[in-house]
Amino acid sequence: MSDPIRVGLVGLGTVGQGVLRVLRNNVDEIERRVGRRLVVTHVATKDLALNSEPLDGITVSDDALASVRDAEVDVFVEVMGGYTIAKQVMLAAIARGKPVVTANKALLAEHGNDIFGAAAAAGVAVGFEAAVAGGIPIIKAVREGLSGNRIDSVAGIINGTCNYILTQMTMKGQGFAEALADAQKLGYAEADPTFDIEGVDSAHKLALLASIAFGMPLAFKSVYCEGISKIGAQDIQAAQALGYRIKLLGLTRRDESGVSMRVHPTLVPDDQLIARVDGVVNAVVAHGNAVGTVGFFGRGAGGDPTASAIVADLVDVARNLGADARHQVPVLGFRTDALQPLPLLPIAEVHSSHFLRLSVADEAGVLKAITSVLAESEISIEGILQKEPREHEDASVALITSVVQESRFETALQRLLALPFVRDGVSHIRVEHFRD
Amino acid sequence: MSDPIRVGLVGLGTVGQGVLRVLRNNVDEIERRVGRRLVVTHVATKDLALNSEPLDGITVSDDALASVRDAEVDVFVEVMGGYTIAKQVMLAAIARGKPVVTANKALLAEHGNDIFGAAAAAGVAVGFEAAVAGGIPIIKAVREGLSGNRIDSVAGIINGTCNYILTQMTMKGQGFAEALADAQKLGYAEADPTFDIEGVDSAHKLALLASIAFGMPLAFKSVYCEGISKIGAQDIQAAQALGYRIKLLGLTRRDESGVSMRVHPTLVPDDQLIARVDGVVNAVVAHGNAVGTVGFFGRGAGGDPTASAIVADLVDVARNLGADARHQVPVLGFRTDALQPLPLLPIAEVHSSHFLRLSVADEAGVLKAITSVLAESEISIEGILQKEPREHEDASVALITSVVQESRFETALQRLLALPFVRDGVSHIRVEHFRD
Repeated sequence: MSDPIRVGLVGLGTVGQGVLRVLRNNVDEIERRVGRRLVVTHVATKDLALNSEPLDGITVSDDALASVRDAEVDVFVEVMGGYTIAKQVMLAAIARGKPVVTANKALLAEHGNDIFGAAAAAGVAVGFEAAVAGGIPIIKAVREGLSGNRIDSVAGIINGTCNYILTQMTMKGQGFAEALADAQKLGYAEADPTFDIEGVDSAHKLALLASIAFGMPLAFKSVYCEGISKIGAQDIQAAQALGYRIKLLGLTRRDESGVSMRVHPTLVPDDQLIARVDGVVNAVVAHGNAVGTVGFFGRGAGGDPTASAIVADLVDVARNLGADARHQVPVLGFRTDALQPLPLLPIAEVHSSHFLRLSVADEAGVLKAITSVLAESEISIEGILQKEPREHEDASVALITSVVQESRFETALQRLLALPFVRDGVSHIRVEHFRD
Repeated sequence: MSDPIRVGLVGLGTVGQGVLRVLRNNVDEIERRVGRRLVVTHVATKDLALNSEPLDGITVSDDALASVRDAEVDVFVEVMGGYTIAKQVMLAAIARGKPVVTANKALLAEHGNDIFGAAAAAGVAVGFEAAVAGGIPIIKAVREGLSGNRIDSVAGIINGTCNYILTQMTMKGQGFAEALADAQKLGYAEADPTFDIEGVDSAHKLALLASIAFGMPLAFKSVYCEGISKIGAQDIQAAQALGYRIKLLGLTRRDESGVSMRVHPTLVPDDQLIARVDGVVNAVVAHGNAVGTVGFFGRGAGGDPTASAIVADLVDVARNLGADARHQVPVLGFRTDALQPLPLLPIAEVHSSHFLRLSVADEAGVLKAITSVLAESEISIEGILQKEPREHEDASVALITSVVQESRFETALQRLLALPFVRDGVSHIRVEHFRD
């Protein structure tokens, strides 16, 4: 029998333990695929107390960097998270010529160009399937499965915490705070949920998706980002009445003018599959000029689903050990020398339709005034819902506009807000329709 | 600039023309991925009259075999269809050491063991992404994206013709014959639709999915196969009333006792995503012990979506030209020496729940007699729907059973059919619930 492939695991939290467990449980099945066993021989962690996986026969270190500099392994897995040390770990592994697999979307979104640049120069593979949408093999699907296409858009529900909260608000009529508290109780949201609910986590993942879709360097700083903390129960209800669900989407699109990248709550028609993806499930929809629309759904987080993605990367790495780097799939799917920085569109230049919910005084002529302002801006109305005032509530008008450039919509919105009968507390949410 | 990679195209129908078109339209984008241009230099076809793509600079032959024996190319694409010559084409390419990409599910399902065996012995790559679910990169996803898992089931809507017909019956209340005629008018069904509507096409694809999921040789002959031609409007309506949609599924599952492979109309709860996949769209759901459930949907047929899958295979082949065969992904995802023939379960041993619709005389005691027979077979009832007789119609009873071994259900069914008040025309359809 051939020697096993030695894996050095850097980090032993939920995901690290998942990798240990999956490699152990499926060692035979994996050997049937690879021809060699994949065995974790080294672990680096400072949190051994939190570990519940057996570590027999594994060399344990509390110094991540020392482990990466010295451990006699064939491949490293970085699942410690964070930026500074994790980046040093990745670069040290690459400097040693060792392939690295990581789930660290934040690190890659912020420092991926450095890391991928170093990897390409050294001819070392970097796997990051686990960084986006957990167990869904979306990196492989877009980067390799759609490689015959000119891809023009990728959109997805890529944060399970937000999708859980929005689903609870939709199904149970909960408010945002209540749904968040529930998510925290169930372990779906962290004590400090900012990264998730403000869309930053989705923005990290979207930056990676955009780069593999279009073959451009990572541009995380250009992702427009808006979270779900301002979504209210009334928005959800009005959207439903108009035939839509509200989802937090990451969305990137390429057209002649450039690439838009944005994360924001989005109304999606409730007869489209992505609108039906509920709870902590993730989903991604891509559109290519040959394939049309393709969609993917599955678990976006958790130890085992994330480990599933990491091990898939390990299997790819294992098959390529000893091969010339030119036979590897380039880390972003496009050859490094073919990556093209593309014009990045600010949100003001993005075209979409808009959902607008206004609290208004219960007066005659309100609807006429609103529609006039929109008509003067050449914005037409695709759907409208007027609600009589209830106890302690103003009357409200919710509407869906035609597709319009954001800057033009914004100008019209300011004019609407200046109307005397419009109260505080406007809701403005973008709307997307996906082609089949 | 490096020399282009020369592609020899065998067959120039809808799919072959799609390959020409996609390679031409996306030649730059593909070169950015591969580092070389992919160019069709040779075409073999007998049907040049049907072609509408320009063929400038391409050597055209009307002899498929001669083309494969002589053409100076780097890789062949077999999209002529059929068995005899197509098989000779595949084997001739392999014998020359040339990688082959094919969309021919019928050929692979029936003769795949020969072809893949020859390819493995010669160290030649065979790509067949296009053979299952058209543009959805399902072969890559299951074979490589889920390689960290022990996969225990794969199920899917893998025939767009049937899904279109069932969708029309559901949405418009059409009967089977009417929906089929519509599908033929729209080009979604062939003049002789037997292969599609009797489930044979789905069975071909399912055999491929089962082999890559479990690492076993192809066993098409063991696929249980039942088509949709007996589904009536009343079945669709009764299923809907009970909270289900009827889909033609291909379904393979592995447990301790062995592997089941079956294609049949199936009731799926209408709140599950796969139940919402309508029209000609395909969808596949896989379950692995690490990833849980992952799903995929997209266009299952048509020139461009199928070409998308073929070109993805070509890109993989192109990256591996010149590499040692041990770095290739094995054709079924498992190493040839690790393929295991698994026990194949006959339909009588499969466990599932069942939908049963009986026409009955409008008498007292009917329901009691039916439930007694089922209770005596230890089959419980999960849902039931009783319909009063209408003009020209008998009364009917539709019910959903608990999960039970098929042979036990069959025995109970024969007893039910022997009851004096039961009329001819029973409908029996299996029911599946998918985990999230």
